[in-house]
Amino acid sequence: MNNFNVIKTDKNTRARLGEMKINGVKIKTPAFMPVGTQGTVKTQSPKNLLEAGVDIIVSNTYHLFLKPGMDILNNAGGLHKFMNWDKLILTDSGGFQVFSLADLRSIDEEGVVFRSHTDGGYYKFTPERVMEIERTIGSDIAMIFDECIPYPSSYGYTKNSTERTLKWAKRAQKHFCNIENPYNKEQLLFGIIQGGVFEDLRKYSTMETVNLGFDGYAIGGVAVGEPKSIIRDIASYTSNLLPDDKIRYLMGVGHIDDVIYSVGVGVDLFDCVLPTRLARNGTVITHSGKLVVKNGRYKDDLKPIDDKCDCYVCQNFSRSYLRHLFNVEEILAANLATYHNIYFYMSVMKEVRKAIEEDRYSIFAREFLDKFKGDK
Amino acid sequence: MNNFNVIKTDKNTRARLGEMKINGVKIKTPAFMPVGTQGTVKTQSPKNLLEAGVDIIVSNTYHLFLKPGMDILNNAGGLHKFMNWDKLILTDSGGFQVFSLADLRSIDEEGVVFRSHTDGGYYKFTPERVMEIERTIGSDIAMIFDECIPYPSSYGYTKNSTERTLKWAKRAQKHFCNIENPYNKEQLLFGIIQGGVFEDLRKYSTMETVNLGFDGYAIGGVAVGEPKSIIRDIASYTSNLLPDDKIRYLMGVGHIDDVIYSVGVGVDLFDCVLPTRLARNGTVITHSGKLVVKNGRYKDDLKPIDDKCDCYVCQNFSRSYLRHLFNVEEILAANLATYHNIYFYMSVMKEVRKAIEEDRYSIFAREFLDKFKGDK
Repeated sequence: MNNFNVIKTDKNTRARLGEMKINGVKIKTPAFMPVGTQGTVKTQSPKNLLEAGVDIIVSNTYHLFLKPGMDILNNAGGLHKFMNWDKLILTDSGGFQVFSLADLRSIDEEGVVFRSHTDGGYYKFTPERVMEIERTIGSDIAMIFDECIPYPSSYGYTKNSTERTLKWAKRAQKHFCNIENPYNKEQLLFGIIQGGVFEDLRKYSTMETVNLGFDGYAIGGVAVGEPKSIIRDIASYTSNLLPDDKIRYLMGVGHIDDVIYSVGVGVDLFDCVLPTRLARNGTVITHSGKLVVKNGRYKDDLKPIDDKCDCYVCQNFSRSYLRHLFNVEEILAANLATYHNIYFYMSVMKEVRKAIEEDRYSIFAREFLDKFKGDK
Repeated sequence: MNNFNVIKTDKNTRARLGEMKINGVKIKTPAFMPVGTQGTVKTQSPKNLLEAGVDIIVSNTYHLFLKPGMDILNNAGGLHKFMNWDKLILTDSGGFQVFSLADLRSIDEEGVVFRSHTDGGYYKFTPERVMEIERTIGSDIAMIFDECIPYPSSYGYTKNSTERTLKWAKRAQKHFCNIENPYNKEQLLFGIIQGGVFEDLRKYSTMETVNLGFDGYAIGGVAVGEPKSIIRDIASYTSNLLPDDKIRYLMGVGHIDDVIYSVGVGVDLFDCVLPTRLARNGTVITHSGKLVVKNGRYKDDLKPIDDKCDCYVCQNFSRSYLRHLFNVEEILAANLATYHNIYFYMSVMKEVRKAIEEDRYSIFAREFLDKFKGDK
């Protein structure tokens, strides 16, 4: 059974319109997944997300493992029921978090020992253990446990790490097949391509990962501090090596212009904390670019955030009101700004899919980016 | 024209079912007004409030005067438009805040000079100036500027202060009539009864204030730290002295059991930060009493907050999930808990009105308070 189908490829670019169906939930791609690290997309209820058009979110193995922990999630019947979200959930494996948030104690072939950033306790993640955790979370899509290296890293270190991630992927895959999903649901497993900024290593990682045969493939180890041009080069190069009939997920990207670019080179799936994090810090995203709405210059501005946006926030509140809410540190500020930013990303992805459907993706992308100034 | 009508009085108590109509918006009383101090009921959008059944909120002259300030509110066309709330708004005059939050510099017959708690600047509130501010805010109901004295206060001080509030009320009323509402809307003016804990002073204040003739009467200077029994005695005694055909507002009350009691002695209107503040601190209110849902004891509890509640939160989330959100300090925790607490208060007020309508208020009150353990 194929969970993903390419419906159409754009005539002049590599952009694809696709459909993914898991556990009876069907979503269209290219799609952007808001991040709900701790079992909630920060400040938003599931009702808000549905209104904004969200049908798939990302949650995080590392965070959920620490809090609320496996017992509570298992007791609730998995993350979907716990947070009352009946659309799709993809769980990142925690690789990125273990290597960025936690205090790393040791890494060897077996796995990683780390000290939690919340309770200070020591824990061990192995490729097998992470599969068990993701089974307990009960996401629709689980990611294998990978080593996520910083930028820049030497060729030698990147090569060794890429080899390790491959070995871990094999072990993860094997173990995943041996343990059942406790909620009797379908759960896909995606491989993650590493290889840093080196084309030959990316190619090697792609070939070997694809040989193992996963339900989908993520381009990992990007958006870790390298320049935009390198992210785009990796996306373009690696996407080209991946099989046409499997979904392609560019992890941690991101800025709307990078999303627009990467769709053009054949990427189907994206996630990033950017729209939600920016919102909490007082920045909203519009068709003209970013707008720091908490800024005093908007104190008298009665226009909506984006006059082309038909979201609840743009239809009902002024920049002046939003700026006031941020100025007096009202929680509603983060709430409304996040709602708009998510809605904006969802709207752009709708425009993206329509443009592919109508074979005018390159024109759409050029026009969109001409207007969008904030992210360049 | 009468903005308030008593539809029915309960057979066995002094509870009244009433209707208030201002600017085309009709609300039923007894009513509870959630507090939106800074131009938002904390964490909730107007859409949320409407869903919960809110049709009147309280905002605050002192806070709005400081931020966003009069220029921004005037530019927006008043608070209703600024915050996008087309139901009713009552503005407290800031008396309570000037005497509790600000650093008071001087008080004399003319007015009060205080140092702002936000920017450290010095400002002067006079009865006249406060009327101008409330006109600019454009609330549906403005309160006169009163002196709000602490508990306990001596008889002598209370007497002098009561006299001062009366003189201020006269000046406020006169000035209010001389300035137009800038938005061409109807705006009622309520008097405030002071007199501390002394029956003769309450009686004096009531008689004199009623002689001035306001659109409604507030029982002020309560819920400032005195025991529950005193609040109830003042409510009962003062309510009895007020004219039957005017609305009676018990300021800053509060606890649901005090509300239930005070309805029984003829109070029509209530406001308090309690339901919203408790929610942000992890406490929800149920028919059985308060429940500290952030407490670890609820980590595995899959029941809703209140199984008798049909709000969005109780219909969709468990105590276990709420506790997790508080535990990891997610903003959504405050959001969902506040939504429930407001919805709960609105539901109780609906039950209150139904009981009065059906002449069984005393039975309702006894049964409700028998079950409700948390607030005693």
